[in-house]
Amino acid sequence: MKLPTDGFEFEVVAQDGPARCGRLTTPRAVVETPVFMPVGTQAFVKSQTPDEVAATGARIILANTYHLMLRPGSRLIARLGGTHAFMGWPFALLTDSGGFQVFSFAHRRKIDEDGVTFRSHIDGSEHRLTPERSMQIQAELGSDIAMVLDECPEGTADRLTVEQAVRRSTAWAERCLAYEKKTGQARFGIVQGSTFVDLRLSHLETLSAMPFDGIALGGFSVGEPISEMYRALSDIGPRMPIELPRYLMGVGTPIDLLHAVGAGLDMFDCVLPTRNARNGQALTWSGRVNIKQARNRDDLSPLDDRCDCPVCKSFSRAYLRHMAIAGEMLVARLMTQHNLYFYADLMRRIREAIREGRFQAFARETEKRMREQDEVGR
Amino acid sequence: MKLPTDGFEFEVVAQDGPARCGRLTTPRAVVETPVFMPVGTQAFVKSQTPDEVAATGARIILANTYHLMLRPGSRLIARLGGTHAFMGWPFALLTDSGGFQVFSFAHRRKIDEDGVTFRSHIDGSEHRLTPERSMQIQAELGSDIAMVLDECPEGTADRLTVEQAVRRSTAWAERCLAYEKKTGQARFGIVQGSTFVDLRLSHLETLSAMPFDGIALGGFSVGEPISEMYRALSDIGPRMPIELPRYLMGVGTPIDLLHAVGAGLDMFDCVLPTRNARNGQALTWSGRVNIKQARNRDDLSPLDDRCDCPVCKSFSRAYLRHMAIAGEMLVARLMTQHNLYFYADLMRRIREAIREGRFQAFARETEKRMREQDEVGR
Repeated sequence: MKLPTDGFEFEVVAQDGPARCGRLTTPRAVVETPVFMPVGTQAFVKSQTPDEVAATGARIILANTYHLMLRPGSRLIARLGGTHAFMGWPFALLTDSGGFQVFSFAHRRKIDEDGVTFRSHIDGSEHRLTPERSMQIQAELGSDIAMVLDECPEGTADRLTVEQAVRRSTAWAERCLAYEKKTGQARFGIVQGSTFVDLRLSHLETLSAMPFDGIALGGFSVGEPISEMYRALSDIGPRMPIELPRYLMGVGTPIDLLHAVGAGLDMFDCVLPTRNARNGQALTWSGRVNIKQARNRDDLSPLDDRCDCPVCKSFSRAYLRHMAIAGEMLVARLMTQHNLYFYADLMRRIREAIREGRFQAFARETEKRMREQDEVGR
Repeated sequence: MKLPTDGFEFEVVAQDGPARCGRLTTPRAVVETPVFMPVGTQAFVKSQTPDEVAATGARIILANTYHLMLRPGSRLIARLGGTHAFMGWPFALLTDSGGFQVFSFAHRRKIDEDGVTFRSHIDGSEHRLTPERSMQIQAELGSDIAMVLDECPEGTADRLTVEQAVRRSTAWAERCLAYEKKTGQARFGIVQGSTFVDLRLSHLETLSAMPFDGIALGGFSVGEPISEMYRALSDIGPRMPIELPRYLMGVGTPIDLLHAVGAGLDMFDCVLPTRNARNGQALTWSGRVNIKQARNRDDLSPLDDRCDCPVCKSFSRAYLRHMAIAGEMLVARLMTQHNLYFYADLMRRIREAIREGRFQAFARETEKRMREQDEVGR
């Protein structure tokens, strides 16, 4: 069950149906899975200090190769001691390969068998990303876990397009593994195949035969119906290698996480808790709260009376609403802090339920309450 | 030297020429003077939690009647327990009367002998502020110190206009004192007179004869040449009542504060440290730092190597610059935290210098270094 590779190790410590608890060890942290990784795209989790992120319980966060290669540049970060030192984050860090961002943000991208050429969304300058270049940048960034460069077709892409992306992603994955490995940095492969489960399973089989330290599912939550994602996850998740960490990229809502954990996934990241906080939306044990709603005007209760976070202990909905209506950034940071704490707490309770063999009941009740008590739209 | 009035007390504890150290006691805090009061206009110090503001050493902050009467409304705040409870600030709070803001922000203001009618800068709704209404709102807000409603002419106003504003401000001050006093709330008078020192002195004499708990100088730093303000302060400051706290409203830069303390002033407020932080400017013992300057690109040193604040202990200029260039709000809050800490530290060292009888030398050396090492514009 172990896979030590210079400081990197993963072990499954409990199972409850397909759901499982694991312990991921990197050179900088021990991470209990299932885990949600806060997104620090540009080497900061928006509005939060590293201390605050750690205080939610997070021991691994994510940063993005695409953004950091453009600004401030990976060579500058390397010269300044790597991403951990640059941003003051002492725990584990996972870097995305830049593939997904090139396909979502960059302008005038041109893909070929060797890599992808694109223009920066910041200043229009031309850049090129190949599997080797992505691994080089991630080595300069100094992350604990590097992701392979992959091609991410849109969620609505046809089968032929998806087949071609899978083929190219396989070739690129091989080249990433062939690139000189950075000591202390694990490498994860990424399964593509959209919602074509047979393509997913065959790509999974191909990547599972390669010496990766973990396997990710990319290309979900990119426009496909949510029920199709749930169905695909329950088909694919349980067939992923048992001994490796399983990472579902870019997903999702609290309810998505319950479904994905139920399918045997271990690691997650998503901008939802941080981005929605900045738009005034809190995620709670009772569903979503839109703090700007008039109902909160003179409400002295916290965002979530089941929550123990510093924000729920100190600030009323009435005060948070006052700041949100005034456009004050303090509310963005407080709601971000709450949402990250809530996600960490959700994962803590999920792990507890798995260890105690009651995950299915926990997931069912939690989803039911979140759907029934959701405040948004009422 | 004492003036107890239900929980409010002021005592001068050290003198060094006109400069002095005092101890201001309100029902909620003991405040060492000279003191800088962070500005929490709308019942928040922008980007900062109350805990962070207190951690800089601040024990008194300021909020604004004009802004809070418009949003969320003083009756709502009263119903929710007052401003302290609403925002979670346990220490002293001073509220401005709304006068200055009506003259700077409000639209279509019409002043008469009884008060001023204006339209909200938020939604254009019509409102009226009279001396009595201002005191009523400040009672609802529940501040420790309330300011009288005054008329603030522009810095360029002619003598006749200023004379009329002084006369009206006197009449309004009397009406504020005649309004039912809120238990536990001190009341400060405001001297107007622009840079006409004779008008200032005569207004000061008038107000000093009234039973105020403190005397403020309003209408400075409103467009007049800075040398005229310094000259007027050194003429007026030493003649203000010895036994009362002396408050210079809306001032100023670190160098302004050194001059004003040297003229015998005790209390200050200004948006400069908070507003400039949000624009990327740090105030330091070596003058101003514009964090976006290219010189900071790979600079691993802190904003100020003489500073002990949490920001200077944890974050490099290179990282702060990266966030500033990326437009990230985290840098606004970190620079705000530094600037507030720096202002509090400046006042701490000013008090120390006064107690040790070396204020003039301290002020001279500090001003010299700040001017010589200032980075802005280089």
